[in-house]
Amino acid sequence: MLQTVIEDLLARQPAIRARLDDFLRLPSVGGDPAFADGMQATRRFLLDWLRDTGLRDAQLLDGGGQPAVYASWTGAPGRPTVLIYGHYDVQPAAPLDHWRTPPFEPTEIDGRLYARGASDVKGSTTIALEVIAAFLRAGGCPVNVKLFLEGEEETGSPSLRRIVEQHRDLLAADAMISADGGRASQTRATVNVGARGSTAFEIALRTASKEVHSGRYGGTIRNALHEMSVLVASLHGRDGRIAVPGFLDDVPELTPQQRAETAAFAPDEDAFIAEIGACAFGEPGYTLRERVTLRPAIDVNGLWGGYTGVGGKTVIAAEAFAKLSIRLVPGQDPLRARDAVAAHLRALCPPGSELVFQFGRDGSPASSLPSDHPLLRAGMAVWRQLSGQEPIPVRLGATVPITAIFKEMLGIDTLMFGFNLPDEDVHAPNEFFHLDSLPLGLRGWSMLLAELGAMPSAAFDRVR
Amino acid sequence: MLQTVIEDLLARQPAIRARLDDFLRLPSVGGDPAFADGMQATRRFLLDWLRDTGLRDAQLLDGGGQPAVYASWTGAPGRPTVLIYGHYDVQPAAPLDHWRTPPFEPTEIDGRLYARGASDVKGSTTIALEVIAAFLRAGGCPVNVKLFLEGEEETGSPSLRRIVEQHRDLLAADAMISADGGRASQTRATVNVGARGSTAFEIALRTASKEVHSGRYGGTIRNALHEMSVLVASLHGRDGRIAVPGFLDDVPELTPQQRAETAAFAPDEDAFIAEIGACAFGEPGYTLRERVTLRPAIDVNGLWGGYTGVGGKTVIAAEAFAKLSIRLVPGQDPLRARDAVAAHLRALCPPGSELVFQFGRDGSPASSLPSDHPLLRAGMAVWRQLSGQEPIPVRLGATVPITAIFKEMLGIDTLMFGFNLPDEDVHAPNEFFHLDSLPLGLRGWSMLLAELGAMPSAAFDRVR
Repeated sequence: MLQTVIEDLLARQPAIRARLDDFLRLPSVGGDPAFADGMQATRRFLLDWLRDTGLRDAQLLDGGGQPAVYASWTGAPGRPTVLIYGHYDVQPAAPLDHWRTPPFEPTEIDGRLYARGASDVKGSTTIALEVIAAFLRAGGCPVNVKLFLEGEEETGSPSLRRIVEQHRDLLAADAMISADGGRASQTRATVNVGARGSTAFEIALRTASKEVHSGRYGGTIRNALHEMSVLVASLHGRDGRIAVPGFLDDVPELTPQQRAETAAFAPDEDAFIAEIGACAFGEPGYTLRERVTLRPAIDVNGLWGGYTGVGGKTVIAAEAFAKLSIRLVPGQDPLRARDAVAAHLRALCPPGSELVFQFGRDGSPASSLPSDHPLLRAGMAVWRQLSGQEPIPVRLGATVPITAIFKEMLGIDTLMFGFNLPDEDVHAPNEFFHLDSLPLGLRGWSMLLAELGAMPSAAFDRVR
Repeated sequence: MLQTVIEDLLARQPAIRARLDDFLRLPSVGGDPAFADGMQATRRFLLDWLRDTGLRDAQLLDGGGQPAVYASWTGAPGRPTVLIYGHYDVQPAAPLDHWRTPPFEPTEIDGRLYARGASDVKGSTTIALEVIAAFLRAGGCPVNVKLFLEGEEETGSPSLRRIVEQHRDLLAADAMISADGGRASQTRATVNVGARGSTAFEIALRTASKEVHSGRYGGTIRNALHEMSVLVASLHGRDGRIAVPGFLDDVPELTPQQRAETAAFAPDEDAFIAEIGACAFGEPGYTLRERVTLRPAIDVNGLWGGYTGVGGKTVIAAEAFAKLSIRLVPGQDPLRARDAVAAHLRALCPPGSELVFQFGRDGSPASSLPSDHPLLRAGMAVWRQLSGQEPIPVRLGATVPITAIFKEMLGIDTLMFGFNLPDEDVHAPNEFFHLDSLPLGLRGWSMLLAELGAMPSAAFDRVR
């Protein structure tokens, strides 16, 4: 049956591509209230699609924020029940003037499909849905599937815990496969075995009750922009090492095995940096691949204050703002890491100033898939067949917070099995999806469900 | 005649106030092209007003930017010819949501007239025009007057030099009185004897060819916002001293006389800082008054980059921007000071990054009025009568670039004789003008023109 399903999928590629285009045209920016209509339209689109495929019980799971879209098929008794994860929300398209094509009008150029969300993660989500649909058309899935499409991945999943809490029975499963968390290379087969965690917050620094004239006060009062710059500059030493006291205490030294595994998939560092025209940076004593997967990072994602309009305005800023995010590695607790940064920043603020933190969400710890896990064995087997190579276990530098949440709340592990690639300008202007990932992904997901379907549900008892 | 003129002016205050309100309603934001109509309407308003007063030769002086408005009256042969300076442009009103009343709808509350430009400098400009008009109504001015109302003061006077160059004969005068450059105190009589200079520029730092995902790259590439923060933080030591190599070399140590003069008008430092809820800061070894008048200052007026919209976006910024301004003291050359800061910033940029300077204009050196100057003697005499106090010579922390330009190009000195006060939120939201400055200013300007008219034109020969 697997071969029939794969042939059916490859033959139907034009229709699959047309549906992906429709999906991408829906502007599902979950973090911006101006896109509420787009979010709602996307949910309607998905519910219709899931019902068409033969999935049952299609519904919205409401946790008070953007609801998740759910559907299931449980016609494979004794076989594993697999939660299949994707998300339908996308990052904001800003800055709009940096896009060469309209962000919500998918445009194919030289084998790339440009659109916001094409890579992250409507492309891979479409692959998962189409593979399930093809199995159902052929008579049934090799595994029981519970489809869970989140609407808040790009905004930190604020209501995901509530949704899972309220639907524990509905979501009960043996394991999860995620369409998010993509491939590490176009030429080298890899399997994701973990991801960095993350936590993010905003700070507002106030040094005066109002903005004043820099002639009248220059040299006598603190400028919020100077002080904010001191705060941001203090996060790293000039050598690239994080300089927040205590922050690195919970970060374990790399083991020889970790060093060897990261070395097995080490990019050409110069080429990696040159590809985005960037300036190399980072902690001494670690390779680039080690830094991006097994060492934490602190980045300021946005910074603003004072007069930023046309021309000049000679004012001393009273307020300065910054958005910060932290990438976490195994061993770090999001709240502890955040508190270390917050305490460091507070200690540097001048007397009389006011530093306000807007924490919002707790963040997610890093995740890891044990080396003997059935999900990992299945993923490795698929990639061996797809590529003819021995796949390399790799960790992601990015964060898939849901893996930690589902592990904690439902006790299940996640295999990240997205087909998106690292050069696809995720979260940036001109995001795209390599279109040759579409047939590869359709084959890969078909094979993965077949591999898992060959195991009894009990194979997951030990790891749950 | 002086007494008649003053009585006439005080009696006509309601009409004067109505005209000031009309002036303030015109949104003359010279630095923003969106306000081109407002600028043009303001020039028409001023030309009509000047013609009404009996001034002759009313015209626009075009230097390629915002034209200046000019008119003259030369009916006092043998008496000094005085160039009277004001400006009709105003700072942008942003941030609009911080205004308690509409910025271009003058609103009187508790003796204060709130509007953008009320203090800087339509209030004092109105006083000057009304005094000239009153003298002309009474038969003639004590001095020859050439009125020069600039349209580019708030944008750094980019075409002022060209205007003066092209109209040297029209503008020839013995001295200048400026309606800009206000009072230092509401309770203590002072006379301005100088101002700090200034120069400003914008910098753009690029560390990568594009914005990228902070999960994929965090810990491996430089973040433009971090590097910009390092640049800004490097401008000062933690002790508040400017840390730019070479910058302070041209700054002379304060003389005992300067120390004594600044001490004579020393504000309560704690109260000065507390009034704007600020955090004290600055070079050790100098009083606040010394720092703000006789020591230079560097301020970042605006700073921005990365994602600054609603919610979070975990990107590493590829570009960061800052607007910088420098306040200069006597002895400093604007270009040399600017170059020292630029060289310092360039030296700190990481390899592979690109720092682009947008210089725009050359800036203005600090200005000083010698202690035996006839303008200063006249100003002191007026304030003695107005206040019953011995006026204190004081320097301004702010910049009136025109004084340096007119000194260099026309060889004349300037008495700053504005009636605005330092608490009036100049360049900030809720700018206002103390309305009791109106009758005081009308008396003061009448007396000043009479004092100067009592001198022969030759009194200025030595100082020109």
